[in-house]
Amino acid sequence: MADHGMLDPVMVRVRALADDEALLAALLDVEVAWAHALAGVAPAPSALPTAVEKAVSRLDLDAGALADAGEAGGNPVIPLVRVLRDAVHEVDPESSRWVHRGLTSQDVLDSALMLVAARTLDRVGADLATASSALVELVQAHRGTPMVARTLARHALPTTFGAKAAGWLEGVLDARERLDAARAALPVQCGGAAGTLALADVSTGGHATEAAAAFASRLGLAWPGTPWHSRRGAVTSLGDALTTVTDALGKVASDVVLLSRPEVGELAEPAAEGRGGSSTMPQKRNPVLSVLVRSAALQAPHLGASLHTSAALAVDERPDGAWHAEWPVLRRLLLLSAGAAALAAELLSGLEVHADVMTARVQQAGPLLLAERLEAELPGRLGGPDAAARVKELLARAGGAADPRAALRDGIPVDAVADDELDAMLDPQGYLGVADAVVDRALDRAARLEATAGRGGHHG
Amino acid sequence: MADHGMLDPVMVRVRALADDEALLAALLDVEVAWAHALAGVAPAPSALPTAVEKAVSRLDLDAGALADAGEAGGNPVIPLVRVLRDAVHEVDPESSRWVHRGLTSQDVLDSALMLVAARTLDRVGADLATASSALVELVQAHRGTPMVARTLARHALPTTFGAKAAGWLEGVLDARERLDAARAALPVQCGGAAGTLALADVSTGGHATEAAAAFASRLGLAWPGTPWHSRRGAVTSLGDALTTVTDALGKVASDVVLLSRPEVGELAEPAAEGRGGSSTMPQKRNPVLSVLVRSAALQAPHLGASLHTSAALAVDERPDGAWHAEWPVLRRLLLLSAGAAALAAELLSGLEVHADVMTARVQQAGPLLLAERLEAELPGRLGGPDAAARVKELLARAGGAADPRAALRDGIPVDAVADDELDAMLDPQGYLGVADAVVDRALDRAARLEATAGRGGHHG
Amino acid sequence: MADHGMLDPVMVRVRALADDEALLAALLDVEVAWAHALAGVAPAPSALPTAVEKAVSRLDLDAGALADAGEAGGNPVIPLVRVLRDAVHEVDPESSRWVHRGLTSQDVLDSALMLVAARTLDRVGADLATASSALVELVQAHRGTPMVARTLARHALPTTFGAKAAGWLEGVLDARERLDAARAALPVQCGGAAGTLALADVSTGGHATEAAAAFASRLGLAWPGTPWHSRRGAVTSLGDALTTVTDALGKVASDVVLLSRPEVGELAEPAAEGRGGSSTMPQKRNPVLSVLVRSAALQAPHLGASLHTSAALAVDERPDGAWHAEWPVLRRLLLLSAGAAALAAELLSGLEVHADVMTARVQQAGPLLLAERLEAELPGRLGGPDAAARVKELLARAGGAADPRAALRDGIPVDAVADDELDAMLDPQGYLGVADAVVDRALDRAARLEATAGRGGHHG
Amino acid sequence: MADHGMLDPVMVRVRALADDEALLAALLDVEVAWAHALAGVAPAPSALPTAVEKAVSRLDLDAGALADAGEAGGNPVIPLVRVLRDAVHEVDPESSRWVHRGLTSQDVLDSALMLVAARTLDRVGADLATASSALVELVQAHRGTPMVARTLARHALPTTFGAKAAGWLEGVLDARERLDAARAALPVQCGGAAGTLALADVSTGGHATEAAAAFASRLGLAWPGTPWHSRRGAVTSLGDALTTVTDALGKVASDVVLLSRPEVGELAEPAAEGRGGSSTMPQKRNPVLSVLVRSAALQAPHLGASLHTSAALAVDERPDGAWHAEWPVLRRLLLLSAGAAALAAELLSGLEVHADVMTARVQQAGPLLLAERLEAELPGRLGGPDAAARVKELLARAGGAADPRAALRDGIPVDAVADDELDAMLDPQGYLGVADAVVDRALDRAARLEATAGRGGHHG
Repeated sequence: MADHGMLDPVMVRVRALADDEALLAALLDVEVAWAHALAGVAPAPSALPTAVEKAVSRLDLDAGALADAGEAGGNPVIPLVRVLRDAVHEVDPESSRWVHRGLTSQDVLDSALMLVAARTLDRVGADLATASSALVELVQAHRGTPMVARTLARHALPTTFGAKAAGWLEGVLDARERLDAARAALPVQCGGAAGTLALADVSTGGHATEAAAAFASRLGLAWPGTPWHSRRGAVTSLGDALTTVTDALGKVASDVVLLSRPEVGELAEPAAEGRGGSSTMPQKRNPVLSVLVRSAALQAPHLGASLHTSAALAVDERPDGAWHAEWPVLRRLLLLSAGAAALAAELLSGLEVHADVMTARVQQAGPLLLAERLEAELPGRLGGPDAAARVKELLARAGGAADPRAALRDGIPVDAVADDELDAMLDPQGYLGVADAVVDRALDRAARLEATAGRGGHHG
Repeated sequence: MADHGMLDPVMVRVRALADDEALLAALLDVEVAWAHALAGVAPAPSALPTAVEKAVSRLDLDAGALADAGEAGGNPVIPLVRVLRDAVHEVDPESSRWVHRGLTSQDVLDSALMLVAARTLDRVGADLATASSALVELVQAHRGTPMVARTLARHALPTTFGAKAAGWLEGVLDARERLDAARAALPVQCGGAAGTLALADVSTGGHATEAAAAFASRLGLAWPGTPWHSRRGAVTSLGDALTTVTDALGKVASDVVLLSRPEVGELAEPAAEGRGGSSTMPQKRNPVLSVLVRSAALQAPHLGASLHTSAALAVDERPDGAWHAEWPVLRRLLLLSAGAAALAAELLSGLEVHADVMTARVQQAGPLLLAERLEAELPGRLGGPDAAARVKELLARAGGAADPRAALRDGIPVDAVADDELDAMLDPQGYLGVADAVVDRALDRAARLEATAGRGGHHG
Repeated sequence: MADHGMLDPVMVRVRALADDEALLAALLDVEVAWAHALAGVAPAPSALPTAVEKAVSRLDLDAGALADAGEAGGNPVIPLVRVLRDAVHEVDPESSRWVHRGLTSQDVLDSALMLVAARTLDRVGADLATASSALVELVQAHRGTPMVARTLARHALPTTFGAKAAGWLEGVLDARERLDAARAALPVQCGGAAGTLALADVSTGGHATEAAAAFASRLGLAWPGTPWHSRRGAVTSLGDALTTVTDALGKVASDVVLLSRPEVGELAEPAAEGRGGSSTMPQKRNPVLSVLVRSAALQAPHLGASLHTSAALAVDERPDGAWHAEWPVLRRLLLLSAGAAALAAELLSGLEVHADVMTARVQQAGPLLLAERLEAELPGRLGGPDAAARVKELLARAGGAADPRAALRDGIPVDAVADDELDAMLDPQGYLGVADAVVDRALDRAARLEATAGRGGHHG
Repeated sequence: MADHGMLDPVMVRVRALADDEALLAALLDVEVAWAHALAGVAPAPSALPTAVEKAVSRLDLDAGALADAGEAGGNPVIPLVRVLRDAVHEVDPESSRWVHRGLTSQDVLDSALMLVAARTLDRVGADLATASSALVELVQAHRGTPMVARTLARHALPTTFGAKAAGWLEGVLDARERLDAARAALPVQCGGAAGTLALADVSTGGHATEAAAAFASRLGLAWPGTPWHSRRGAVTSLGDALTTVTDALGKVASDVVLLSRPEVGELAEPAAEGRGGSSTMPQKRNPVLSVLVRSAALQAPHLGASLHTSAALAVDERPDGAWHAEWPVLRRLLLLSAGAAALAAELLSGLEVHADVMTARVQQAGPLLLAERLEAELPGRLGGPDAAARVKELLARAGGAADPRAALRDGIPVDAVADDELDAMLDPQGYLGVADAVVDRALDRAARLEATAGRGGHHG
């Protein structure tokens, strides 16, 4: 609709991956691949693939006009095939009768969407790999950077920024694994008018299945062995994987927005000329990357659900509306994920970590940040039947005191806990639990995934 | 993203109402209106409005480039204002300092979206008025056409097609009322950088509120008296109204698809050259209008929910992602509703009603279509303590009989129910209840709404 | 399912409004009301209403057993009517034939759900009134409390807490108005097996419509003049209104969570014994009220959408699944809204406002909080063709300076801006725009709504 | 909330799998498992596990009271731990200090929900296995049963019911594979107050990770190696898998509803005493199983999306509302899937297939059902430059003729196509394409899955 993305800043840098021009190219790729597949098994003219390719290369199609023409039949494939047949006829009249033969509109549109998905996913994968690398560096650099852990918007215990970033990394790795699986499974659609490949079968002397497999292979898609015109798990799986990407990135972006608030100041978005400016306030540097990633993460779940609603209503051998409802939704979901991944890669690659502020905040939080430990360990030291209650009271008193450590010291006999023991108990660095193991596990996993990807992943 | 609507056949005919060009025009309308508003109350140069209008008329903007430029700051207003200021500077340097003065990006974008909404809603309103008129004709024409009522996908009782279409009409009238209320409430946004209109206030000598009211008035939008930067009820109300439109039309379209299935054959979509063709099967006439309307109705609820999610998360004086998540969602919802309304108007204006098939089906359903009545009335006639059980048994027997009426006659003594009484009891026309009143109420309501609209509605 | 709310802390305090017992009571109220309605117009036995009431009073129903029995027919009304008829038969055999006569399951279930909704909405309305009163007090008390306005998670300009709370109040008032309209429109369902009231009509000698109106009146619901078995705008409108409530409260709760974070400390939840405790950290006081309200606000939009999906698919004279999908969703939405309203009333009634922290933060933000003003006013004072650029530079320099005011003073000739003028320009109190008007408008509106409610609203 | 399922007929038969009692049992199982884990690695008293088990066996907990008590802290674990500690104290005071030590509420609640999920999934798996077996029988029995394929609600080509049911079977197998993967991945939650297992670590002399692994192993859940307090892919993956189940079953149920409509009559739900009755119309047999399955399939996508929204907003080390929003949604999704699976198993096990009606409809559809073939093959036979156009015309004429075969014969010279050739061309059985291969593939896949499951799947 002549939508150039003015309302979608999150996706402008990736829009060309899945815009109408990209779709149109994919639709034509599908028809060309089918011509090759037919020529491989059928009594079709051997000139067929060349004729179709030549015709395609001569076509000067207008996506807007095709969109308009697609209203009458409900999809853009019908007018496209008409134009393509005419173009092939000019090149080789005999071949023109074989164009699209045995396929149905849904075969072409579903396959083209999967092709667009494949191309988009390759980009998403690459951007998530960049994000992962950036996270690996952050995790390594900040394994020893103490920070407060926050639960229910309150300071809880000490942790490290390394451990926190390791959690982000694990989320991104989860999403990458899900996405890789989705990428590998992207299927070609090939069923003919009723899911039986009837015309392809009579036209190829019974070799329809071979043709379908060759078709898939040429497009770099999987041949699922059977059509899926009204069994839409391939679409919902893809949608779920894409939403998992925006979920993982949305969590990161939400944390960055919080931790870069002026009052917190533990993180800052990368500074870049022009980025984050305000139309009225010259001094402001808005966290635009995170904000845009969040905007994608807020939209995606609703789009993923839309695909499931369509899947559940996919009646008959082709649905009566539910199929049509998938197309734009899937495209938006692809672009939201791709946009979010691209922005997150930039965000994480340049993220400023204010380790000094993190460290200072832990200090400032004081001994009460270790209250869990004190409550667990002090009663045994103090002894007596009401030790637990006395510790609770002591902690409450210390919480309100000007100098909480002094208040604690006051309330604990030195023979129960010596000064150096109390210091040890109150040392945030001594109460980090398995933070290091959390870091190691995430780094190991990232390294393993990278190694696999290097050996032949789609984004290698 | 150079999206021309290839994947959105439902909205191609309305896309120009809300595409990037339409948005761009609205953004400029907003800046022009603000120039007028300022000039009315401020020490601004009196040349300001003319200078801005002249500059706008000379601008040759590229929506794609603006979209790209909008990524850095997160919205397209920032680069647009820059370009506009420069253009005004060329016309009148003094005026250029007053361009956009006192507004913030959100004021401009929210107001522009409301303006686009207003223009789209006028079209939706007009198409729904057409749909209503078509329905009024159907209701009038088929007040006396008997048909089977279907509940839980089974034949229940007789009704009339008039009563059924009256239900459709009431749904469309509900949606129109909701939409008219939403249209009247569409607000201008005017709060400045922090919702206090601070710069506007100091720039106008304390007349910011008057400026805001004048601004709204010039744009044909409501001035809500206060900014709504992070109070998004205006957006969700609009979204809910738009979804109510697609709900009402989705119900109609779903009924049309069902009733036009070959085995039912009671309705048919209007025949039109080229409409509903198949890419492979020449004899098929697909119910494309209904299918597309349904595809819109399946998507819309998810988009409406997306707006509510954003509203619930609208923190601070401007949200950190939730606002950005609204824009494309609202636009799609506008276009889905508008597209659905346009297609539904065409569908209903030419709907073929096969009254003969409806009538024949009632006959063919036979006396069991009146079972509810028999079960209620016969026991009293037959008398005896087990009369109800005997009637149940009789109905079961008749249900399985080759000639159900004969089976009933056999089981009911003539002195309990005479032949003509039995005929009356089994006459579908005698068991239509308040079907006529249902028809009258819907027609009255439609007439009243038309009268009101005629007196000054937006679509009069 | 013996769900007592262990996973729904947000709604435990309101669960009795809409649990199965409440529903069961409503179902019986509906049957009783219909008995009265029939007795008023029909040749029904005059003993009917008394007989049904007596039977109901004797019933000892088990909601679990009814739920189990409801699976076979797909809803609990079928077994309930069976039990009720038997019970009435014991009281008055003649009356038992008139129980439920003319109604269908959907009439009873839809009406009962509307009755449950009415009762729940009265509670929501009362809690929102309490929340509004608390907000009115906050707005009045903090009209003059300066605070930083935050946009995109950054400090923007000064505002007042009064103005901020006025925005919350407007949101709650919006929701109340929407809810009041929804409450007034809650309709009785009355259509019989096929939406024609056929059996009611023959059983009342043609007075079905009068019976329907009397039925509605006794239940305190509206009679919409026509059945709405497969026209579900009443349900979606209600759902939209309920979601509007959780949106408004979710915005407030999200702000409270942010502003009560330890690093911000401008607000705190009311302290209450036991409230907000942690299972492991004695010193923590979690913002439980806000967190629970937010949890409701995150769920509600998805439930509202579910109702719209059902509405769009409401085929035939009773839908084939879409109707059944509404019931539990509507109930959850009612309870989420009611729970959120109750918690929000408590939250706002005891909200701690740390005006000192707010004020200090504005001071600490320093002159750059006024940058918008400086950028607008200084160029004219400085004069010269490049004044705007020079001001931008100056602001950037000041932003990085240890003493920003001094840096500004340094960069501005005293003859352009005198000391006292600069002080005025940098005074946050002098740059609050229409904050006071925003406060006044919200207070006026609240007072008006209260006056109306007092004159006969549902919650008066 | 004393919800016994009156509004959820779809889930009454499975409600005990995940009701509050089931949850309570799981919560206690989790605390017991942790006692065992601690005792295995820690200086904890060796009596600890026995003491906790004994205390649990003596507890007489009231889910409603716990739900009420859970409001103050926001979850039911806090009061539960209090009660449990007291109970253990009575058994063995020393052990009581070790109850829950090192865990946080979220560890217990997340783990308990995963346990409830595991138990529910086992049931879903078993019901889907039953459904698959029933489908295998249908596919085998109807490999040769011709039926019309329907696309866009129109007759398209011939297919077989075997091929159609094979599509259903593939959908169910897709869902089973997704579910098995989800089941295997269900993780224990174990991170302590801040995701570092700090208290567990100091309490076990640095063996927190071993304890976590032992904990998982005892519960039959996976130990993911790291906590996932605010990385919620485990929850969304589970939700996506559950929605995939309802999607697959919703598609089947939607087809059954359509094909069992009185006008189609190709399928019927299993007849069962009491099942599908109407409250008013004795002769009706409503397709209740399909309707209820559809009602689940319409709700599930919205719930799945709700989980994704929560995941995207999982800030900090524990989210501020998004976590709380997951619990009831996940439970409903579990029960909707389980209920749908149970009902679908019953539906498919007794589905009545009216092969005679299917066959008759193919006959009745006539030669035009083969139009695709004619349009493809005739032009070559007829020859001449305008052969394609002539065939189109001929098909159009035949489509409107009383005897379409005669009209075709009339229009095709016998020397181009002989009578027996025309008969072959018009034989639906000769135009079934790969329908048999579609059947074989689905049967093979089902057999393979069954073999795997038999070797040690969860449902073997």
